Amino acid sequence: MSTNWEHIDKCAKEWIKEAGERIHQAFRKTLTIETKSSRSDLVTNVDKEVEQFFIERIRQTFPSHRVLGEEGFGDCISALDGIVWIIDPIDGTMNFIHQRRNFAISIGIFADGIGMLGYVYDVVHDELYYAQKGKGAFLNDQPLPVLQPVSIPEAIICLNASWIIENKQVDPKQLARLVQEVRGTRSYGSAALEMAYIAAGRLDAYLTMRLSPWDFAGGLVIIKEVGGLVTNIDGEPLDLLGPSSVFVSKPGLHREILQQYIRK
Amino acid sequence: MSTNWEHIDKCAKEWIKEAGERIHQAFRKTLTIETKSSRSDLVTNVDKEVEQFFIERIRQTFPSHRVLGEEGFGDCISALDGIVWIIDPIDGTMNFIHQRRNFAISIGIFADGIGMLGYVYDVVHDELYYAQKGKGAFLNDQPLPVLQPVSIPEAIICLNASWIIENKQVDPKQLARLVQEVRGTRSYGSAALEMAYIAAGRLDAYLTMRLSPWDFAGGLVIIKEVGGLVTNIDGEPLDLLGPSSVFVSKPGLHREILQQYIRK
Repeated sequence: MSTNWEHIDKCAKEWIKEAGERIHQAFRKTLTIETKSSRSDLVTNVDKEVEQFFIERIRQTFPSHRVLGEEGFGDCISALDGIVWIIDPIDGTMNFIHQRRNFAISIGIFADGIGMLGYVYDVVHDELYYAQKGKGAFLNDQPLPVLQPVSIPEAIICLNASWIIENKQVDPKQLARLVQEVRGTRSYGSAALEMAYIAAGRLDAYLTMRLSPWDFAGGLVIIKEVGGLVTNIDGEPLDLLGPSSVFVSKPGLHREILQQYIRK
Repeated sequence: MSTNWEHIDKCAKEWIKEAGERIHQAFRKTLTIETKSSRSDLVTNVDKEVEQFFIERIRQTFPSHRVLGEEGFGDCISALDGIVWIIDPIDGTMNFIHQRRNFAISIGIFADGIGMLGYVYDVVHDELYYAQKGKGAFLNDQPLPVLQPVSIPEAIICLNASWIIENKQVDPKQLARLVQEVRGTRSYGSAALEMAYIAAGRLDAYLTMRLSPWDFAGGLVIIKEVGGLVTNIDGEPLDLLGPSSVFVSKPGLHREILQQYIRK
């Protein structure tokens, strides 16, 4: 029997909006904040509750689907066969805590490793970016146009300051040159939103050295649907089962930045 | 006769909302984009039209007031005696062009050089941050609480990547250390909004090497009203008549960052 993607899409959207409501309600209560791998890697009770909410719904409605979630309440996944939901209940937890904005719910749904549905929901601004493979990408039911080429001197790139200082992943001197030669740089602190911003044409490229699959799974499907490219910094497809560098951009810019500024 | 600040405040708010309407209308038309001092220093017909709108209203209603505006339609001002409006019709013009969001109308009103009224209006999100000297600061009529101290490891600082690479103003090695030791960094591309974000407690410090008075005049009045500090990178008061570095932060953090990371 073939998979009914329209039904899965309808459920995903309903649950995302319901999760958004729960997050709005949580703003009225006290947050419980813990650190995870480092002092900047934060988690709250809301991240956990929202992930559990999604997992319950998915297990009830689609018992054969598996779930990979940031907070670890999903399945233990070592291969991408079948249908897998990759979920970040709150992408940009630091923003969620400090700003109460600039965070998103991110979900990518994959069939045998192929991105079929992608969602990035900016809860506070009620902006749902989503895409279904082969059917285009949308922002709140408005179609997002296919991305057009842009030159380096006219590009705005999204890049955290921490990658322009000495680090283990990339040569900061090359990236410093990129910062000098583009029109401007920005950094918002939520990978999912930053990818959604590229899909919506507000940024031209996004570069970061370490993300997990739940950070980029939703954005990946949306970006591909508007003609953007998503690879790691070696130009290879992203690993959906482990951490990875991520480089997203408009088509022409992708090759130029990779060749001229990233490869040593 | 003493100045009726309540009346000036009422007019300023009315005109800001009306200017916001004009900007919304301009989204439906084609923008005319020109460069000014450099290829990243942009201006549009909308910047110019909005500045002219404010100047007309001010001259009609308050003929004795003078205006210093980014686009040069105001007065030629070499001293701050009397009442001076310092206006940026669109702060974050690059965002306005590329993103159609993340820009603001910024206005500071000064009496003999003292900041009396300040406004930063995030047009797209309909968020008006404002303050009157001695009467507190507000976001859309909600009072903004006085800023509380925060430690370096818990701080989010706003800092463009261009200041962490070799530049003429500051030692990038010291700032690199700051980037490593804070909880996170962000960059939004509108000084007025970045200052408003600090006033609203969403960022803890903001550092930039070159702004003009119209970029910070509105934010300055708002920040002071919530107990934040605004100086140049030498810890001195800002020059309201010329370009300046700008360092804004919560009280304790201000001295610590200046002494430990900025001064050589």
